[in-house]
Amino acid sequence: MSLRVGVIGTGMIGRDHIRRMRTVQAGVSVVAVADVDGELAARVAAGIGAVAHPDGRELIASPGVDAVVVCSWGGTHEEYVLAAIAAGKPVFCEKPLATSQQACLRIMAAEAGHGSRLVQVGYMRRYDAAYRALKQVLDSGVIGAPLMMHCAHRNAGVPDFYQPDNIITDTAVHEIDLVRWMFGSEIVRVRVLRPRASRNAGELPDPLLLVLELANEVLVDVELSVNVRYGYDIRGEILGEDGTVSLGDPGLVAVRRAGQVGGPVPADWRDRFGAAYDVELRDWAASAAGSGPPDGPGAWDGYAAAVVSEAAVRALRTGEPVTVTLVDRPKLYD
Amino acid sequence: MSLRVGVIGTGMIGRDHIRRMRTVQAGVSVVAVADVDGELAARVAAGIGAVAHPDGRELIASPGVDAVVVCSWGGTHEEYVLAAIAAGKPVFCEKPLATSQQACLRIMAAEAGHGSRLVQVGYMRRYDAAYRALKQVLDSGVIGAPLMMHCAHRNAGVPDFYQPDNIITDTAVHEIDLVRWMFGSEIVRVRVLRPRASRNAGELPDPLLLVLELANEVLVDVELSVNVRYGYDIRGEILGEDGTVSLGDPGLVAVRRAGQVGGPVPADWRDRFGAAYDVELRDWAASAAGSGPPDGPGAWDGYAAAVVSEAAVRALRTGEPVTVTLVDRPKLYD
Amino acid sequence: MSLRVGVIGTGMIGRDHIRRMRTVQAGVSVVAVADVDGELAARVAAGIGAVAHPDGRELIASPGVDAVVVCSWGGTHEEYVLAAIAAGKPVFCEKPLATSQQACLRIMAAEAGHGSRLVQVGYMRRYDAAYRALKQVLDSGVIGAPLMMHCAHRNAGVPDFYQPDNIITDTAVHEIDLVRWMFGSEIVRVRVLRPRASRNAGELPDPLLLVLELANEVLVDVELSVNVRYGYDIRGEILGEDGTVSLGDPGLVAVRRAGQVGGPVPADWRDRFGAAYDVELRDWAASAAGSGPPDGPGAWDGYAAAVVSEAAVRALRTGEPVTVTLVDRPKLYD
Amino acid sequence: MSLRVGVIGTGMIGRDHIRRMRTVQAGVSVVAVADVDGELAARVAAGIGAVAHPDGRELIASPGVDAVVVCSWGGTHEEYVLAAIAAGKPVFCEKPLATSQQACLRIMAAEAGHGSRLVQVGYMRRYDAAYRALKQVLDSGVIGAPLMMHCAHRNAGVPDFYQPDNIITDTAVHEIDLVRWMFGSEIVRVRVLRPRASRNAGELPDPLLLVLELANEVLVDVELSVNVRYGYDIRGEILGEDGTVSLGDPGLVAVRRAGQVGGPVPADWRDRFGAAYDVELRDWAASAAGSGPPDGPGAWDGYAAAVVSEAAVRALRTGEPVTVTLVDRPKLYD
Repeated sequence: MSLRVGVIGTGMIGRDHIRRMRTVQAGVSVVAVADVDGELAARVAAGIGAVAHPDGRELIASPGVDAVVVCSWGGTHEEYVLAAIAAGKPVFCEKPLATSQQACLRIMAAEAGHGSRLVQVGYMRRYDAAYRALKQVLDSGVIGAPLMMHCAHRNAGVPDFYQPDNIITDTAVHEIDLVRWMFGSEIVRVRVLRPRASRNAGELPDPLLLVLELANEVLVDVELSVNVRYGYDIRGEILGEDGTVSLGDPGLVAVRRAGQVGGPVPADWRDRFGAAYDVELRDWAASAAGSGPPDGPGAWDGYAAAVVSEAAVRALRTGEPVTVTLVDRPKLYD
Repeated sequence: MSLRVGVIGTGMIGRDHIRRMRTVQAGVSVVAVADVDGELAARVAAGIGAVAHPDGRELIASPGVDAVVVCSWGGTHEEYVLAAIAAGKPVFCEKPLATSQQACLRIMAAEAGHGSRLVQVGYMRRYDAAYRALKQVLDSGVIGAPLMMHCAHRNAGVPDFYQPDNIITDTAVHEIDLVRWMFGSEIVRVRVLRPRASRNAGELPDPLLLVLELANEVLVDVELSVNVRYGYDIRGEILGEDGTVSLGDPGLVAVRRAGQVGGPVPADWRDRFGAAYDVELRDWAASAAGSGPPDGPGAWDGYAAAVVSEAAVRALRTGEPVTVTLVDRPKLYD
Repeated sequence: MSLRVGVIGTGMIGRDHIRRMRTVQAGVSVVAVADVDGELAARVAAGIGAVAHPDGRELIASPGVDAVVVCSWGGTHEEYVLAAIAAGKPVFCEKPLATSQQACLRIMAAEAGHGSRLVQVGYMRRYDAAYRALKQVLDSGVIGAPLMMHCAHRNAGVPDFYQPDNIITDTAVHEIDLVRWMFGSEIVRVRVLRPRASRNAGELPDPLLLVLELANEVLVDVELSVNVRYGYDIRGEILGEDGTVSLGDPGLVAVRRAGQVGGPVPADWRDRFGAAYDVELRDWAASAAGSGPPDGPGAWDGYAAAVVSEAAVRALRTGEPVTVTLVDRPKLYD
Repeated sequence: MSLRVGVIGTGMIGRDHIRRMRTVQAGVSVVAVADVDGELAARVAAGIGAVAHPDGRELIASPGVDAVVVCSWGGTHEEYVLAAIAAGKPVFCEKPLATSQQACLRIMAAEAGHGSRLVQVGYMRRYDAAYRALKQVLDSGVIGAPLMMHCAHRNAGVPDFYQPDNIITDTAVHEIDLVRWMFGSEIVRVRVLRPRASRNAGELPDPLLLVLELANEVLVDVELSVNVRYGYDIRGEILGEDGTVSLGDPGLVAVRRAGQVGGPVPADWRDRFGAAYDVELRDWAASAAGSGPPDGPGAWDGYAAAVVSEAAVRALRTGEPVTVTLVDRPKLYD
């Protein structure tokens, strides 16, 4: 009676989602896994009493799988999402939806062909309690219409594979989705400004200041720092006409010791957004087990993020403002 | 394959635990319910596809029930817990374990007869992330040995049935369990001081200052205020030899508006401790589904809380310090 | 045209007040000094172009001195304050007013004989911006009538001369004066509870919990810790019927670094209350230069603090609650 | 023996400085005033026992005046500052030093002719305890080399005379001076971005995002909002290579009431920077009474602020980045 889920990609994030579905989520069974590393898939499957499929497409096709979670390498997302849509199965795809806007358009076309939404993209910040409280205050009208937002996205460090573009496509993409959702308006123009680079940044242009202009004229600045060493730190403040609302400093405890009062900064994104991932996947599974489309970010959001990311990468490379142009939004995503 | 749980008592807290086991918890099925109000039990059972038993003892005896959650009125706890022990089934009992220390001793005797621990008592603060962080800092030694703790326990208001004793037995009992756990030491003496009563307090002696002395000489003061109107507010600071650690102010957001900067105070205990209840019940079910005894507070903790509560009620009535005397702790609870 | 002040006692606090009057205060000249250490007095006098008197009484008698600041050892306060009253000169006396309640009564009698108030006692907390804001919120009525107050008074360490009584007479005396002022009510009963002593405390009974009952039934608890090592930390929260008000955490800056976010704790009382001393002395000098009595704490407050301190010392020694009995307040102090 | 000061301009800020010199500052006498409104000057003079001069030049020339404070309308600053230099008298000039960079160059030339620095400009933030603590942390090296700074400068409202340029020349100019001082580096390029305008802003382009690039490649963004209604709010955070330091939220008290915890936001700049003005003027008077040049911001700083302000006004009007070009800094200002 529970939702039978297959997970494609059993790397760190895939295994984390499996753990999640097996502990903090009712009504879900992980029945199948697949990974490009067949031995890893087999090991993971054995550990949880699931079937290991030789590849993701076979997993998707399996009649024992009701819904699919895609956690494989970004370059493979398009293929698996299209296969899930073709099979008429709900699919949760970790970000990015696909690695180009053209691929995203193909996914949207497939979903249109299917006639209803089947895809959710893994932008978990929409499920974070603090961002939700921020949006609730904004939507309540007590601070008036929004005018600006100041964000900072700081990582203690990044993996060795990071190239300059990753600061946009892997890091900034969270704020790109976030502000579209927060303000209900599309991004129309992006700029990237380059301060002095940190000695901790190696060859990366780090930090950066990303500036986003929205269709409703809200202006958003985002500090992107991916080697701050001191921890994982996410900030945001919205300026409204009559007031502001900002993310709190949610320290569980304060320690007074040796001349200082303070507390720990989150170590990494798991530490900061663990609960948001729990809520996100629970929410998705509930919609997948029911009859309706997912409430979360869908293919249109994945497409918009891809287009803005491409523009921001161009802005980073050229130093010039870049205008963002989206196709008309299909009715399916209203 | 999942743990089949029966819930006795389908009032507010019982239904909340049922919701919890059906949403944020894997591996658990609520298969049976019972309530003194048979119609209510039937309605709840129908809503979740469970069996409604005419009484709790039958539910406990049912071969389809692996483990029992007791959420009925406190006066019935002893009976159901003893029945569960007799049936050899794990039982999670909302606080209090029983309404007298004698009843608690009978439960401990039954558990001793069974030969292993089957009982967990619902002191959820031990599962709260902030209290756990507090304990982690304390145990790490960075603030030195503990000397004092200052607590405040504030309710916006209390139910009409509240009598003076309830301020001890229903409210303060959380701090009574908490400090025993936090400091790993028993309470040996209690005092209750009475300030001026609030005009919001009706006939109740509210607020109170409860002072607890522990065997390790740590001194704890607890402000008990049950009609503060402004919200639900739980505070705690531990003074160590070299520093202090205190509960943070977990504001998700800060709003600046109309001359003020601030944020919401939790409205009630669900708001403040909802996540702690989730972790608590998940942890209990994991132990119940496995072979081992529960990690959480057990019958000994329920007994100690009962003895201290009785002493504090006496201290409230007489205005005098009251010494706490416990039986020797049985080996089962080491 | 400026107020000509003589300072008796040129130790640390005396020199600090001299510096204050010569930098952050208009309309005041320090024209004379005296100290039991004549060479020190001469040196200080030479540095500021003042006259060094061989003893305090001569300084007070000098026609070139309009007003007197007494910063000498506590045992000498009575003599100098009485001399100043006899000379009809305004006198600012560092706390304590005198070292016994009998001495304080003699000062009050002298002031009554003079017919108007000439004495201000150096309880500087009444001039601290944060405590004033606390009182302003309380007096505004927004939190309702006061019921309790929780205080902590923590010193990083204390001088070698500290004896157990000093924890009351030098440390707690600040809260004793503070709560009388804050609540406009006399203290009627005191208790001292002794937790486990800190290993940093040597022979001192440190920390202590001082409990004060006021005539208006407000109950105040004060943690007294004089060897906390980590800094100088003063806390206070007032519980009212409808809300609370507490001292803020006046961190000028927050540093995020090495996994932590936080800021410095004040190092000592100069760091925390420096501005309060400035305002206090400025306020006193303005009243001394004018025709009216001082606005600040007077001889009655010094007397009440002495009586309560004596009671608290007894409570510390005996472990029993001690009732406080004051003489009727003379009309002069209404 | 005290410094005899003449104040030109007895409007709000002039009278505030007079009050300051007569209360919280030792060693200073306000002996002369002048104002374009002769009656006002006479009234102010009578109130403090000073001489009213018919115009500022006569005041400057008066042998009874040792040093001059210029608080008149900006358009008159050049004339008075030049006159003071010609008279060889120390002069404290409220910002701006002059209303064009050419005028500032003339002042620098006059000062060079005099051979030593006589001018201090009223950028009071350099004397604010919080900004000083920020700089101290930065200079200590614990957060590594600076990379970015995020600022917000918010006014509850602005006077009716405000034109778009005033948002730069009267508001942003404080941050322009501040960052030059904070980072010890000149601003080389400015941008102004325009978000949606607030409905509270009338015809003003409000808010704005000012972006400053420094010679050392530090990038600074400044939110300028001059009609936020909710209060006066100044924020700043410096991102360093290894950490950050930000202005604290210096709430004196926290109130818990009616579901909220919080405290007041400063109402205006007097509320926020009152103490900084005190320290600033005291520091200036000490240097003016002594033999040395002022420690505070001088003519070079006034000149640089003027050049950057002009560039920012152009950037606001054109929407384009504008490069800042300064003359070589004369040796006098090293």
